[in-house]
Amino acid sequence: MNEGHPHLVIVGGGFAGLWATRALADAPVRITLVDRHNYHLFQPLLYQVATAGLSAPDIAAPLRHILRHQRNVEVWLGEVVALDPDARQVRLGDGATLDYDHLVLASGATHAYFGHDQWARHAPGLKTLDDAVYLRRKLLMAFERAEAETDPEASAAWLSFAIVGAGPTGVELAGTLAEIARHTLRNEFRHIDPRLARVRLVEAGPRVLASFPPDLTESAQRQLERLGVEVVTGTPVTHIDGTGFQLGGEWIPARTVVWAAGVAASPLGALLGVPCDRAGRVVVEPDLSVPGHPEIFVGGDLAAVKRENGAPVPGVAPAAKQMGKHIAASIRARLRGEATTPFHYQDLGNLATIGRMAAIVHFGKLKLSGVVAWWFWLAAHVWFLIGFRNRFVVLVNWAMAYWSYQRAARIIFGEAEEPPDDDVTRLPPRDPS
Amino acid sequence: MNEGHPHLVIVGGGFAGLWATRALADAPVRITLVDRHNYHLFQPLLYQVATAGLSAPDIAAPLRHILRHQRNVEVWLGEVVALDPDARQVRLGDGATLDYDHLVLASGATHAYFGHDQWARHAPGLKTLDDAVYLRRKLLMAFERAEAETDPEASAAWLSFAIVGAGPTGVELAGTLAEIARHTLRNEFRHIDPRLARVRLVEAGPRVLASFPPDLTESAQRQLERLGVEVVTGTPVTHIDGTGFQLGGEWIPARTVVWAAGVAASPLGALLGVPCDRAGRVVVEPDLSVPGHPEIFVGGDLAAVKRENGAPVPGVAPAAKQMGKHIAASIRARLRGEATTPFHYQDLGNLATIGRMAAIVHFGKLKLSGVVAWWFWLAAHVWFLIGFRNRFVVLVNWAMAYWSYQRAARIIFGEAEEPPDDDVTRLPPRDPS
Repeated sequence: MNEGHPHLVIVGGGFAGLWATRALADAPVRITLVDRHNYHLFQPLLYQVATAGLSAPDIAAPLRHILRHQRNVEVWLGEVVALDPDARQVRLGDGATLDYDHLVLASGATHAYFGHDQWARHAPGLKTLDDAVYLRRKLLMAFERAEAETDPEASAAWLSFAIVGAGPTGVELAGTLAEIARHTLRNEFRHIDPRLARVRLVEAGPRVLASFPPDLTESAQRQLERLGVEVVTGTPVTHIDGTGFQLGGEWIPARTVVWAAGVAASPLGALLGVPCDRAGRVVVEPDLSVPGHPEIFVGGDLAAVKRENGAPVPGVAPAAKQMGKHIAASIRARLRGEATTPFHYQDLGNLATIGRMAAIVHFGKLKLSGVVAWWFWLAAHVWFLIGFRNRFVVLVNWAMAYWSYQRAARIIFGEAEEPPDDDVTRLPPRDPS
Repeated sequence: MNEGHPHLVIVGGGFAGLWATRALADAPVRITLVDRHNYHLFQPLLYQVATAGLSAPDIAAPLRHILRHQRNVEVWLGEVVALDPDARQVRLGDGATLDYDHLVLASGATHAYFGHDQWARHAPGLKTLDDAVYLRRKLLMAFERAEAETDPEASAAWLSFAIVGAGPTGVELAGTLAEIARHTLRNEFRHIDPRLARVRLVEAGPRVLASFPPDLTESAQRQLERLGVEVVTGTPVTHIDGTGFQLGGEWIPARTVVWAAGVAASPLGALLGVPCDRAGRVVVEPDLSVPGHPEIFVGGDLAAVKRENGAPVPGVAPAAKQMGKHIAASIRARLRGEATTPFHYQDLGNLATIGRMAAIVHFGKLKLSGVVAWWFWLAAHVWFLIGFRNRFVVLVNWAMAYWSYQRAARIIFGEAEEPPDDDVTRLPPRDPS
């Protein structure tokens, strides 16, 4: 366990934290990786769990298992609730404290309701596995309630779905939900026609998938519409309750509204007492360290990093992995008493899936859309499910879902009526030594 | 929808109810299949979900999907809370009522704590998918808490597991849990050695798997012990709380106790106002109808049926399927104004799995145990996952689990600290017409 070596605490087992941890496998440090969950989550496929295409375990692997052979790591299931940069100490929800020599904060992001937190209960977001299972239940139950409802208007409100926010997650959810309504549920109901379900994708900004060039954006919107999604851009949602939402001047009845609009960095950033951007991301030094605290690094969605051209580094998995590896290199440099180097984001391109055989891809000069882009996206994502023993299972599930239009995980369970509390652990206090 | 045909209400989409429904596909009846869940559950593999070998959707398929092409069936998500045999009416939890001409009750069984209901919160049982997800979380969290615990005694209590009841479920859970502790978690913890976990299987009766002949029972116990399970028979558990349990004269610290001892029939049987056996099973006529109510049939675990030799028909899936089919035949006979025939249970033999490469099989003269029996069991169960599009996925998961000792679904989610409420539906009242 590298006793006597400096103690590195890494908060967050996502792409940034896990890649940093792995890259320090043979480094002379004692690593404690702290995460609220016992698993690493393959976030890019979370929408597939929410739409019943995959089951939760397909996209999650236990951190302890991934790191079982890396003897300089201890995995700690817990939630960091406070940190003291001067005392070099973090405190966990169970009261335990950890002293560190180096600290990596990679606790990611959560939803933001732009000051409308009361919308949260009516329009759940999709960040955690529990969010996904809850959302799956909510989406499937809406069809059940429409079927059970005798008043046609009330039934129609249950068949009215809205996704707020047309970023990648919103687009994926809208496209897949339209497919479920049009194909997956065919013949299954006796009182409703699921194909009459309305799936609205509403975006306050001027276009969907705004991180792509306009021509690809237009293609994405056409592909969405072909799948049966009604796209409304340039109009903000001004109110949401359990019965519907206000879109510009129009009140739209909808019993199911999903929030895919706002992202806010994990609150841990604010605990550092250094400047953060509007989303709460920590404005880091070029080497991803915290101003005034060279022993603290921030990576992944929690870090506000600019590219050479001044554009922000996007909150995508490849960027988080790159940051994690760079932080590991910076820590090695510090351990050797050498200078750290600035982080350079290597843009691997931008992919977004829209639905069945629909996607857009942007790699420098290369622009793809439609079927080709979709296969490209599929190959990339299956490939990157690395370290998951069930990658093959995912492939099988997808293949079957593709040919049968069916979705392997279409069961309603996890009885919570409200999104479950995210803190999985009630661990007893413990001496960190 | 066979308007004008007699209305058959089938309560329960398990093996008995679903097989009865399917067997009436071309019969001149309007069928309403009522279930609390939207899926048919392959109960024999529930323990695999509880022990993280399979994910919940692997063993559940949506009833609507299974029956989508059977036009004389309407699937209704709801829970029957009352029935009036004289008015021929059932009432659902949401207040809706269903009038029937014929009624099939196949609502199965639940756990029984023999009058010690206060044990339920300390020793959860395993009957539903939510039970399984909750149990998985509880089992995996126990190792996490042992790891976080600094007091050796307290840590040992978290590594002390007990399964109460050595029927098939108790044996499966004990054998698999021992494998998890000894193999699956190897190398993953830094403060505890999971192999030191103690897995006790305690049975008040004289032997494990008492439904098998004594020689196979002895083999089963030897196989359990080889897997690392401590088997204690002939000793009743007299007290259970969150810290341990009283076994005969001994108090055994154990933070995790699982209840696999008692089964009680669904409370619906009692609503009939006819004689039930001690477990609450309805004592039915030879044709599985209810005494005095030829229009009501009872099947599956809710029915108390004797075999020709006077022995009870066991509460296993093949028996439930046979009853379901027989009930369908009886209803057809009634519709034709013909006499019904008595139910004859065809014993297809008795299988029980114990763990990795360990099982016992009893087919008439044929008795197998160990590796051969295990492959036999595996083949039979994978084969009988019929109607599940993901049968192949199950096979893949198992193959991988077998070779790697890993378990695909080893993630802690479903944040409920308590077993979730089983009533999934809050459907608005609705006119059954």
